[in-house]
Amino acid sequence: MRIGELSRTSRVPVATIKYYLREGLLHPGVLTSATQARYDDSHLQRLALVRALADGAGLPLARIRTVLAAVDHPPATTLDLLATVTEEPGGEEVDRSEALALLGRLGWDDVDPGSSSVLALARALRSMHEAGFTLGEDHLLALGRAMGTVAEVEVAGIPLEDPAAAARYVLLGTALVAPVLLALRQVGHVHTSRKRLGG
Amino acid sequence: MRIGELSRTSRVPVATIKYYLREGLLHPGVLTSATQARYDDSHLQRLALVRALADGAGLPLARIRTVLAAVDHPPATTLDLLATVTEEPGGEEVDRSEALALLGRLGWDDVDPGSSSVLALARALRSMHEAGFTLGEDHLLALGRAMGTVAEVEVAGIPLEDPAAAARYVLLGTALVAPVLLALRQVGHVHTSRKRLGG
Repeated sequence: MRIGELSRTSRVPVATIKYYLREGLLHPGVLTSATQARYDDSHLQRLALVRALADGAGLPLARIRTVLAAVDHPPATTLDLLATVTEEPGGEEVDRSEALALLGRLGWDDVDPGSSSVLALARALRSMHEAGFTLGEDHLLALGRAMGTVAEVEVAGIPLEDPAAAARYVLLGTALVAPVLLALRQVGHVHTSRKRLGG
Repeated sequence: MRIGELSRTSRVPVATIKYYLREGLLHPGVLTSATQARYDDSHLQRLALVRALADGAGLPLARIRTVLAAVDHPPATTLDLLATVTEEPGGEEVDRSEALALLGRLGWDDVDPGSSSVLALARALRSMHEAGFTLGEDHLLALGRAMGTVAEVEVAGIPLEDPAAAARYVLLGTALVAPVLLALRQVGHVHTSRKRLGG
């Protein structure tokens, strides 16, 4: 198909497709003349993936590039894969004491205190506090336990027997499942508050 | 303080502060001359809140405006509050059959199938599928149960005895706690995979 049809079918504007081509997020089509190229289903699928990572999961383009590069050329082991996923651009230092105290109470103190996932937690807690919002320690602990269950279910689902499938699962799952989890939480709020508050 | 100091202390650029003032997301300072105004701690706190909603939770400005309006003038009942929070801009229709089947299995079929939270779930599932990613039914069910626990913990924490505090908790919690939950999941991935995969 030509770029116009690729745009209509994928619901992605032509200008955006051209931008993704320039940025290397989408592989080139087969040239049919000096100014025209032909695209196929592989382009449709890649566009859907880029849009899901950008719009659905809200990843910045630089991060999408890293994730796609790792999908195309997966690291050797699943632990290396997880490192790719949890690797965030460094950014500024923050106080990690609340994050580390919480991880201690959760029994997760095998996690490297300097790792980017701990930094992400410290940043999220700081951002919440700076906005004038607080959660009690027991409340945070209960949320941590529930998210630990989520993580266990996800890690148990890694298809270890197929390295390429495992790579896709780990790299894309972290980003693509996040909006599903937050939507489930939202429906859960409605269900639970109906039960508790009536209505 | 003047706008320059407000910018330095809040780490928000002056141009962005002026934009928030024009858009009504930040209340005006007290004019000290025709071109200068004085700001105080209430501006610092509001800026931190807007940034946490924008950067931390990734809300679009239109949504931040709705949330802040409801914080400033809270609805009368907690159920109305939850409606404000789960109310999303309509957007296009999507197939809800998978979302509704999942809610049925979770025992959450008291939730209105036409509600925006169900629509959000249907959209998140569609976006995931279009990107070529699938999760088994039992896997989704397990994730749904864990997110149900998150929702129960959060709803149980609503300070019902203080309507203004309840409004802040419900309106801001949904957005500000989301990054904390996703960071906890990320640390949980590292902890669980260390346990299961060694390393």
